[in-house]
Amino acid sequence: MSAHIRQTSPFRWEGVKVSPYKADGPHFAGITRQLLFDGGNGLGCQLRYFEIEPGGYSSLERHHHAHAIMVVRGPGRAFVGDRVAELSMNDLVRVPPLTWHQFRAGDAPFGFLCMVDCGRDIPERPNAAALAALRADPAVAGFIRV
Amino acid sequence: MSAHIRQTSPFRWEGVKVSPYKADGPHFAGITRQLLFDGGNGLGCQLRYFEIEPGGYSSLERHHHAHAIMVVRGPGRAFVGDRVAELSMNDLVRVPPLTWHQFRAGDAPFGFLCMVDCGRDIPERPNAAALAALRADPAVAGFIRV
Repeated sequence: MSAHIRQTSPFRWEGVKVSPYKADGPHFAGITRQLLFDGGNGLGCQLRYFEIEPGGYSSLERHHHAHAIMVVRGPGRAFVGDRVAELSMNDLVRVPPLTWHQFRAGDAPFGFLCMVDCGRDIPERPNAAALAALRADPAVAGFIRV
Repeated sequence: MSAHIRQTSPFRWEGVKVSPYKADGPHFAGITRQLLFDGGNGLGCQLRYFEIEPGGYSSLERHHHAHAIMVVRGPGRAFVGDRVAELSMNDLVRVPPLTWHQFRAGDAPFGFLCMVDCGRDIPERPNAAALAALRADPAVAGFIRV
């Protein structure tokens, strides 16, 4: 692929496919994935661009691998660990290992970069006990979608 | 560090230091470095933000490790391999291993993200023979700064 990959329209790039976020499921809505950089040439990490449409949300999940996130189309909201944060353009978010997290758009498209290692584990979704624990906090209960 | 790292003013973040690009030298000008994510929690990669002021430029260099770059404050210009590219906001640039590259700002601040593996080799600068070869192309000769 060319060294220079142009943005062809806002948050769309030449030769970069707009992919489903995950295989179908009821636990996410209105979210797409674009793989901007997929390792290669010895690089052991990926940079993905996720975009959530108004009303949409990512999967509530956790995993051993860490996420390093930067908002590039904002604003948006995130639940990470034990709190809900209002995110603005260019804000950064660390998602540590085994930390429950979910992203939601507000009234506008919400887009963010997510850097991960190429080799990583499969996300886990909350079981009934984990959900009950998360919902013990009313702010979290009002935010999360499953 | 907090899971949520706010942008406090344009392209400045809470707790993120604005660092010199490299140790002093005559081979770069008007460029700063901010380490947004420095691996950790098992993550084997870094995300850096480089900003070049009008008239400034990064070092002309090459190395075995690859770069994955996204423009977030544009426009700007890049020499990669054998050509000079005009870069716009959100454009992507791959810098393959052992490929000469240099970034230059135009009349406005030029900022870009650069994703790299935490473990990587030290950059090499061109010797006289390499410079002569690069300068064989007038477009490249007019662009590069050493």
